[in-house]
Amino acid sequence: MELGMIGLGRMGGNMVVRLMRKQHRVIGYDRSADAVKGIQAQGATGADSLAKLMSSFESKPRVVWVMLPAGKPTSDTIKQLADLGDKGDIIIDGGNTNWRDVASDAELVQSKGMHYMDAGTSGGVWGLEYGYCLMVGGEQDVFEHCKPLLTALAPDDGGLVYTGPAGSGHFVKMVHNGIEYAMMQAYAEGFNLMKRSAYPDMDLQAVAEAWRHGSVVRSWLLDLLADGLDKDPDLSKLKGYVEDTGEGRWTVDTAIDCAVPTPVIALALFERFRSREDNSFADRVLAMLRNQFGGHAVQTA
Amino acid sequence: MELGMIGLGRMGGNMVVRLMRKQHRVIGYDRSADAVKGIQAQGATGADSLAKLMSSFESKPRVVWVMLPAGKPTSDTIKQLADLGDKGDIIIDGGNTNWRDVASDAELVQSKGMHYMDAGTSGGVWGLEYGYCLMVGGEQDVFEHCKPLLTALAPDDGGLVYTGPAGSGHFVKMVHNGIEYAMMQAYAEGFNLMKRSAYPDMDLQAVAEAWRHGSVVRSWLLDLLADGLDKDPDLSKLKGYVEDTGEGRWTVDTAIDCAVPTPVIALALFERFRSREDNSFADRVLAMLRNQFGGHAVQTA
Repeated sequence: MELGMIGLGRMGGNMVVRLMRKQHRVIGYDRSADAVKGIQAQGATGADSLAKLMSSFESKPRVVWVMLPAGKPTSDTIKQLADLGDKGDIIIDGGNTNWRDVASDAELVQSKGMHYMDAGTSGGVWGLEYGYCLMVGGEQDVFEHCKPLLTALAPDDGGLVYTGPAGSGHFVKMVHNGIEYAMMQAYAEGFNLMKRSAYPDMDLQAVAEAWRHGSVVRSWLLDLLADGLDKDPDLSKLKGYVEDTGEGRWTVDTAIDCAVPTPVIALALFERFRSREDNSFADRVLAMLRNQFGGHAVQTA
Repeated sequence: MELGMIGLGRMGGNMVVRLMRKQHRVIGYDRSADAVKGIQAQGATGADSLAKLMSSFESKPRVVWVMLPAGKPTSDTIKQLADLGDKGDIIIDGGNTNWRDVASDAELVQSKGMHYMDAGTSGGVWGLEYGYCLMVGGEQDVFEHCKPLLTALAPDDGGLVYTGPAGSGHFVKMVHNGIEYAMMQAYAEGFNLMKRSAYPDMDLQAVAEAWRHGSVVRSWLLDLLADGLDKDPDLSKLKGYVEDTGEGRWTVDTAIDCAVPTPVIALALFERFRSREDNSFADRVLAMLRNQFGGHAVQTA
């Protein structure tokens, strides 16, 4: 089949390569001309504009995958594609879009007689070789039509799921990331406790490596942890400052909207915020109050 | 080599079988005569007392693995073995002993010129086929001596780690279980959110199955989750009442002793306690207070 890929960064660029390896024809566009040249060198068709991308297909309906930063870049591009496309064309948002923003994008696309699908995509930089776990929402017959492309992107042994109506793909991907936050925090706390325990000289890399085999906590994240500790046992090259790209916040927002308790996921999110606070006002409030009511000693700035 | 196994339950019994498959000679004792008969039928040597077990070895030093419930059953047995054994014999506690209780057991054994090792053991009922992840503390040369037995019990591709002095094996296993609590809670919250979301008809088993391939949250626990949802998609055969066997409590106790924050692990533990409270006094206090200060409607018993 043919697919147009918009956004040729780490994710989109690798997905182009994986699709071509599986004998699909790919047309790629990125606002960076170098990125377009990069995939041309690997055998893809390059386009220097969205219009050019849409006119480079050999058949219809056209399937276009948008792999851009969530929010305005994605929504603006989908708007342009809705203007450029014809009835029956299919636009897939594969980015980290908030599932609650899908409705407006989907309605716009559908108002032109085109189809919208949202594909939550997990796998990161490892996806090229192993494949991407895809959680796809939209019309089921459109999903079936795109299946050869989707199975090419997914791992050979599975990892593709139809989740229901438009929006549900990003919703499931969001929950996936919320779970990921809490799993990461679980390992982080456990390894911190071992590091600061009665056995400070313990070889934590050896522990992580052993746990990869036969333990209840074995996982892909643990594989990455063992690998990271192998390269830098004390993680001394890193600062303990943890960013987020929004999915954890949306998970907690959604949990609040639905009145569903997700305490551990919420706390894992807050621990990331905590990592960014040094000498926080909250901690100074606590120290001040202890001093006020109990005369407890304080450290001064 | 030879090994004496004390305690032939789900764990000990399967470990006997795994050791025999790897060409080791095993003598087994359990207070249940049927359990002893069970392993005899599979080719092990049975013993009807600890004394009989100790006299059934063909060579010395003897290696005895205690696989009993933690606490009194384990400590009492180790006491008896210390009396029955000779200088140089090796006693391995493979149960879920609290790492802080190791010192007294270890000192008793060592006072007789014998050796003590603690082996944290993970893998549950799946260990027979796949092998057990083993975290072993004690004297390093004793660990080396026992290595043929330990590698036979461990998975073929790894899963054995020497953790340091006596006690460190159970310590690492305890932290492993703390991490396990929080990972389980992460999945539990995420799947609950999906179940009660805008997409209540979503096939959660299909989602779990897809996540097993290529997603960031893939893990052995997720494999079990996908399997469990396959057998009972709504888990309608279960009551949401979650027990614990202590390791999570000890992890949090230890974290408090060391003043190391483990908020997500602590919260995962408390969520288990929460699962056991129906119409809790805490919830009634909250309802009462809302009524008191705001006149908010309450539900009556």
